[in-house]
Amino acid sequence: MTRKLDLNCDMGESFGAYTIGDDAAMLKLVSTANIACGFHAGDPVVMRRTIRMARENGVSVGAHPSFADLYGFGRRRISGEKPEDLEAQLIYQIVAMQGMCALEGHPMTHVKTHGALGNMAAVDPDLAALCVRAVKAVNPALVYVSLPYSETFKAAEKAGLRVACEVYADRSYTDAGELTPRGQPGAVIHDPRQSLDQVLEMVVGGHIPTTGGKRLPVEPATLCVHGDTPGAVEIVRTLRAALVLNGVQIAPFAKP
Amino acid sequence: MTRKLDLNCDMGESFGAYTIGDDAAMLKLVSTANIACGFHAGDPVVMRRTIRMARENGVSVGAHPSFADLYGFGRRRISGEKPEDLEAQLIYQIVAMQGMCALEGHPMTHVKTHGALGNMAAVDPDLAALCVRAVKAVNPALVYVSLPYSETFKAAEKAGLRVACEVYADRSYTDAGELTPRGQPGAVIHDPRQSLDQVLEMVVGGHIPTTGGKRLPVEPATLCVHGDTPGAVEIVRTLRAALVLNGVQIAPFAKP
Amino acid sequence: MTRKLDLNCDMGESFGAYTIGDDAAMLKLVSTANIACGFHAGDPVVMRRTIRMARENGVSVGAHPSFADLYGFGRRRISGEKPEDLEAQLIYQIVAMQGMCALEGHPMTHVKTHGALGNMAAVDPDLAALCVRAVKAVNPALVYVSLPYSETFKAAEKAGLRVACEVYADRSYTDAGELTPRGQPGAVIHDPRQSLDQVLEMVVGGHIPTTGGKRLPVEPATLCVHGDTPGAVEIVRTLRAALVLNGVQIAPFAKP
Amino acid sequence: MTRKLDLNCDMGESFGAYTIGDDAAMLKLVSTANIACGFHAGDPVVMRRTIRMARENGVSVGAHPSFADLYGFGRRRISGEKPEDLEAQLIYQIVAMQGMCALEGHPMTHVKTHGALGNMAAVDPDLAALCVRAVKAVNPALVYVSLPYSETFKAAEKAGLRVACEVYADRSYTDAGELTPRGQPGAVIHDPRQSLDQVLEMVVGGHIPTTGGKRLPVEPATLCVHGDTPGAVEIVRTLRAALVLNGVQIAPFAKP
Repeated sequence: MTRKLDLNCDMGESFGAYTIGDDAAMLKLVSTANIACGFHAGDPVVMRRTIRMARENGVSVGAHPSFADLYGFGRRRISGEKPEDLEAQLIYQIVAMQGMCALEGHPMTHVKTHGALGNMAAVDPDLAALCVRAVKAVNPALVYVSLPYSETFKAAEKAGLRVACEVYADRSYTDAGELTPRGQPGAVIHDPRQSLDQVLEMVVGGHIPTTGGKRLPVEPATLCVHGDTPGAVEIVRTLRAALVLNGVQIAPFAKP
Repeated sequence: MTRKLDLNCDMGESFGAYTIGDDAAMLKLVSTANIACGFHAGDPVVMRRTIRMARENGVSVGAHPSFADLYGFGRRRISGEKPEDLEAQLIYQIVAMQGMCALEGHPMTHVKTHGALGNMAAVDPDLAALCVRAVKAVNPALVYVSLPYSETFKAAEKAGLRVACEVYADRSYTDAGELTPRGQPGAVIHDPRQSLDQVLEMVVGGHIPTTGGKRLPVEPATLCVHGDTPGAVEIVRTLRAALVLNGVQIAPFAKP
Repeated sequence: MTRKLDLNCDMGESFGAYTIGDDAAMLKLVSTANIACGFHAGDPVVMRRTIRMARENGVSVGAHPSFADLYGFGRRRISGEKPEDLEAQLIYQIVAMQGMCALEGHPMTHVKTHGALGNMAAVDPDLAALCVRAVKAVNPALVYVSLPYSETFKAAEKAGLRVACEVYADRSYTDAGELTPRGQPGAVIHDPRQSLDQVLEMVVGGHIPTTGGKRLPVEPATLCVHGDTPGAVEIVRTLRAALVLNGVQIAPFAKP
Repeated sequence: MTRKLDLNCDMGESFGAYTIGDDAAMLKLVSTANIACGFHAGDPVVMRRTIRMARENGVSVGAHPSFADLYGFGRRRISGEKPEDLEAQLIYQIVAMQGMCALEGHPMTHVKTHGALGNMAAVDPDLAALCVRAVKAVNPALVYVSLPYSETFKAAEKAGLRVACEVYADRSYTDAGELTPRGQPGAVIHDPRQSLDQVLEMVVGGHIPTTGGKRLPVEPATLCVHGDTPGAVEIVRTLRAALVLNGVQIAPFAKP
């Protein structure tokens, strides 16, 4: 039986004279692109170019909003803002991306929060609800990409948004269904074979293997792959080929 | 016979902890607001607040895009960018503002370029055409606010955009119909009575009085007033009252 | 018996076209200025102007470094940076200010951390030690301005820096000697008479009155006054006059 | 007879999560590094790391100040600022770099202006004088790196600064001694052999060959090499080896 899986990758993270990642190559491999909106990375020129390349490659696009933090690339944990202020910042980013995509004839399909914002919202019900509110305010038809077993997942479902359940090939999971924090032993899976097995177990087997030996039910819609690490393109190419060989069909979770 | 005139003012120029202008007071006096888009001034929080206040006061709103130059407040003259890059920057700003306005139930009506960008485009046919292209790409129904006798005016008309002819009460005009450059003697009109007379001559009389004694035909749609100078609100209040007393009806040139 | 007290105020917080506070007026009242270094506020033009005005008024100057966060004015709590990276950011700010002051012939005397960084360091021994290290690395003769009963105070003393103990007129204190967090009832003292009494109790009486009724020993070197609130200059003028009337001599804790 | 020549390269242009150039490799080849100061590129972390690596490799360091323009990487031409404001911006950058270098025990030797600022100053006597004033204000012992036959060269000499005459291997020269503008045919020399010949003609022969067939006298102190182009390190390695083979000794024009 054929299983479908989306491959999503963060893109459009270059800025001015600065380049991150090989988006052109990655767009030949993935089915969904999360594009930076100019707050932690990206700029209007990069956004437009990335949307166009995605359209030409039949790759679905979405907004990848973040804290306003170019210096920290959205990886610094920021708190102390009024919730309504952060909500306005997210709305601005999502609506700008939605508008740019519409102008390029490639309507955006989803939103995925970036970096520290995503990590903080995953375990903070208030922040999760705030992110979900911002997405729904812009367009309730947008899909919310979220880790399972997270506050964001719950908040998005509760708000009536369609949620795309996102899994990782190269990260292990705790018994609570969360990613093992980086820095802890075994957090990152380096062996390609083990990565593939984990994905197949999640996609075909329907459960997440945890570091405590549990098996948590899961229905993955999309697999997050990385574009900004050394050898990224080759790693994704290999993983994708292996998935296809194992009967997994790569396709976007949502089409424009 | 009643003549109609719009009063437009640049607004939403606060940023983070920084405040410029008394937008709440000015929105009781003007009929149109040009709102900064976050590149030379403004931020998502300020944008949303300004749009909401404008809606509550029945004031039409538009985008006020600029060079990407927060430090210089968009007043530094910037060149050397690829035209398509600058175009993408303008599109981003206009589409973000359009989206924010739509979400607040107060659709935007127009675009007016800010500061150095506006000044440079007024005398540079290529830059004027670029600005017009960006507006038209986002929404060909948007009104382009422009000085008469400028390259921008010509480019907007040529592109088929509706143009709102903008005049000044406190600036004198050269025989070419351009604003006398600041710094030249007589560039700025300080006497309220003289300002009022100039506006009436343009609105009722249908011509611009020039420093060389010419009378250039003009059909003003909107008068630009300033919000960021000392005593700004009182100056506008007085001018507005005088215009009304002289039979000029203050109303937006375009309604959402 | 005459007691000496310094009045310090955060200054130079304007940026580009944006103005915060009336530094010229405040410099006639205070004896020490903490000048923003361009990371949360300030820019080279503002720094130079503020240093010059301070010199002309005989006001001592110091660096007021912050997280790199112009948008949040240094009030957003930021974490997740590598300690050595944050240290480099602080060193850059302090050394830039020290250099600018030296060029203007008005050597700087001290450092006071700004906003969220200061608040976080006051209760975090590691962050406190990091701030102290940065100051000492630039110049071990610099005075560290710090709240008493804070991790910063302890770290600065331990590192052998001279510490200027800072107190507040308009904030109440917990039994632990910390400022009552804003938002809690009684955190801010609005009554000028009560403010004055608190300062005199600290300066003349040598102890901090706490909300729990305790009296904690203190030797205040400097009183922090605010320049960015409505009526700030008048409030400081009144407080200063009252202090002088009560036999307190206003003088900088350190002279260049 | 042995001739001495410095090789200088712009460095420290990474920012936050963004990397430009392979500074570690380039520092094994050049004798002088011009380090970005955080206005068009660079940040405190990058500055400190670059200074340390330069010190370890015995490479002299200097400030590479620019317009305040991170988005444009200092390549956008900016005008319309008050001269004293731009001067303050340059002083801030130079004094910050000088301070950081001093703290790392590797005193800086020189200043070279970056990008659009450098290009504009080379042909504008007022801007050239402004740049020179800023350098001299910080430290009159600093060497000013400048193209010959430029306004900057003249202004620096007139101000009594020591000037290091800078030449290019891969750019042709007009009869006026200026670089042929990019975009004009023959502006860039792609052939390594031709590049080497041009350098030897300048260093050993003592004159610049021009596109019009002239020979302009020159005494080159330093050769500018590029670190941010594809294959940059290999190109410099080859050029350096060829220079050494031809009896040119690579050494900094100034030592800390």
